[in-house]
Amino acid sequence: MIQVAVLGYGTVGSGVVGVIETNHDSILEKAGVDLHVKYVLDLRDFPGNPIQERIVHDYEVIVNDPEIDIVVEVMGGTEPAYTFTKRALEAGKSVCTSNKELVARHGTELQKVAKDHHVSYLFEASCGGGIPIIRPLRTSLCADVIDEITGILNGTTNYILSKMIDEGLEFDDVLKDAQQKGYAERNPEADVEGHDACRKIAILSSLAYGKRVDFTDIYTEGITKITSADILYAKSMKKTIKLLAYSSRQGEKVLAMVAPYLVDKEDPLYAVNGVFNAIFVHGNMLGDAMFYGQGAGKEATASAVVGDVIEEAQMLGTGVVSCWSPEKQELTDVSGTEKRFFVRVKGSASETSEMEKVFGPIEVVDAGLAEEYGFVTERMTEAEYEARASKAEGVLGMIRIREK
Amino acid sequence: MIQVAVLGYGTVGSGVVGVIETNHDSILEKAGVDLHVKYVLDLRDFPGNPIQERIVHDYEVIVNDPEIDIVVEVMGGTEPAYTFTKRALEAGKSVCTSNKELVARHGTELQKVAKDHHVSYLFEASCGGGIPIIRPLRTSLCADVIDEITGILNGTTNYILSKMIDEGLEFDDVLKDAQQKGYAERNPEADVEGHDACRKIAILSSLAYGKRVDFTDIYTEGITKITSADILYAKSMKKTIKLLAYSSRQGEKVLAMVAPYLVDKEDPLYAVNGVFNAIFVHGNMLGDAMFYGQGAGKEATASAVVGDVIEEAQMLGTGVVSCWSPEKQELTDVSGTEKRFFVRVKGSASETSEMEKVFGPIEVVDAGLAEEYGFVTERMTEAEYEARASKAEGVLGMIRIREK
Repeated sequence: MIQVAVLGYGTVGSGVVGVIETNHDSILEKAGVDLHVKYVLDLRDFPGNPIQERIVHDYEVIVNDPEIDIVVEVMGGTEPAYTFTKRALEAGKSVCTSNKELVARHGTELQKVAKDHHVSYLFEASCGGGIPIIRPLRTSLCADVIDEITGILNGTTNYILSKMIDEGLEFDDVLKDAQQKGYAERNPEADVEGHDACRKIAILSSLAYGKRVDFTDIYTEGITKITSADILYAKSMKKTIKLLAYSSRQGEKVLAMVAPYLVDKEDPLYAVNGVFNAIFVHGNMLGDAMFYGQGAGKEATASAVVGDVIEEAQMLGTGVVSCWSPEKQELTDVSGTEKRFFVRVKGSASETSEMEKVFGPIEVVDAGLAEEYGFVTERMTEAEYEARASKAEGVLGMIRIREK
Repeated sequence: MIQVAVLGYGTVGSGVVGVIETNHDSILEKAGVDLHVKYVLDLRDFPGNPIQERIVHDYEVIVNDPEIDIVVEVMGGTEPAYTFTKRALEAGKSVCTSNKELVARHGTELQKVAKDHHVSYLFEASCGGGIPIIRPLRTSLCADVIDEITGILNGTTNYILSKMIDEGLEFDDVLKDAQQKGYAERNPEADVEGHDACRKIAILSSLAYGKRVDFTDIYTEGITKITSADILYAKSMKKTIKLLAYSSRQGEKVLAMVAPYLVDKEDPLYAVNGVFNAIFVHGNMLGDAMFYGQGAGKEATASAVVGDVIEEAQMLGTGVVSCWSPEKQELTDVSGTEKRFFVRVKGSASETSEMEKVFGPIEVVDAGLAEEYGFVTERMTEAEYEARASKAEGVLGMIRIREK
């Protein structure tokens, strides 16, 4: 029997206990591991709940119990999660987590500690919720040189954008609705400003390209500036708007950024709507592949965590090797990268000569809005776009266009 | 150094050698295994090709060489692939393959032989080409009770259907074009009659539900009866037509079938076009997930094979446990399963009373075709549909409607 301790009895923690107990027999049959939750660490008590008899308030009980093989850290935040994780690994216990903040910040070090102690530190649920992506990158796609990852990695923003597009609503109204439904947090900044997606693409990129990508280096833009007017233009171009977390290999460097993009109908990411997430991967042999599923949610996330628990249980004594180099991955300067830009400006679609003078050849997009029009530029660098836009009068907004 | 022998230097075989050599350093760095192709078994010689010095014509050289750790079987067909695989496993060599025919027919036995000899028998590339699906089912989704798998598992038929839909062409014309382009074989029966998809869903179902699903038990219909008229009806219903390989858990039994289905715009399988494949999975905790990518093609398939080679190399000495029970999975009788049916009949959409008498309440679909119309039935069993259709006059065709 493998004894597991769960740190935190919140949404994911209670989901993990639920998955281990509901699917206990199926897991035993398929994977040959007999999982048992011995402790749940939480500050609270749960009187009347059968979990109560396994609740402990003191981490020392867990870290000092030699029977505990695996610690599931689903507390979130950096502390005390970091200290608890490190101590568990040092005590010879494998750890798995859904905590993207911790993995993005200290994952490199914690993987090293795990390796030194012949235990595992796994984090499938930190990116894409229930979608298997970390393990496929680590195993199935190991024969490939990965040269691009593009993800819809945040369910809250994808839900908001989908709802804005389907119902023609404004950002603020949809956000309020999402908060009421529990799809957005009361303090939604981490989601809507792109920070959550940024941490996830940092983790995926570290894994795919082999060196530590520091999330604080990644250019990040959220969706707060997207308006219902942008949606009308997108529709008239038969495109949709998605918050994409993107990275690609550029020689020895890596380009990484998070921003809203106009996405074409032919793109497999086009149809990823609502709270769903998807991760598009391009490998030098594999070509295009995409992984799609629920990016959040109690059971889906817990399913991914327990997938890690099972692998750790099977690899007790040796540990799963899962390590990118602690060497820092140098990122390319976003300002030098080329793409086309969709721009909204004040004025009339019949008088575009001013904009042509500034931006060069443009493709006009008329969504029938009063006193404004839109256009798509030719390919140019971000720096070139910035320089030109600063010279143009009446620019109302810009969205990048995804190229494939 | 891990010495590998490749059986067969056809499309996939030469792709495998290519992946191992092109990505050698990246594989060594990421996975810590130093792969080297020592032999390639082929009846032919390849004068002038650098592979020539590693070509052997006699399998005994390979099976009797103690240096060979891993054998890659990419010959296709049942014999001599079966005998060569079994002998390699018995000689303590791990084997991996892209040969769905062999896995569907003898996979249960070969996994047992592998287990008995502490070696691995892996077959990621047998389903979905480059798409990681076998390993995720075996590992990442191990915490889940899988209750449905639906795949677009055959690139040739998906290419033909996509082309018929995009260009309004007839099956025979597109097939000829596909044969010229090399997307369809000269003898296309295995693809267009659904046999290939049938073998693949048998393999995926065995893995997902844990017992041996015999592919000869699976009800299988191909796409040869789909016409350009069907496409017009599908378009007027804002649906598309896909050849789906479907299985689901029904208590102790499993329902499995391969047939063309009308698929809704909201379905993630809707946008899977051309030679792409996708596998939709539903787990009791995971919810919906989908895996998308190139279902065929030299490099993509070879990438999946080499992913297996790497895992086998990492697990030398113990073997990867990958086994469904040899016990035969009982399948439910398709005739008892309920769904809605789209039916094309002779006549006019303004005189539907005859059909309503036979089929009950119907939803008429008028695609503007002369002397015929279509309708969608209410949910009924396959047996009920058959009984009613046999009483109706002028039925021109039927396509099932996918429900989610």
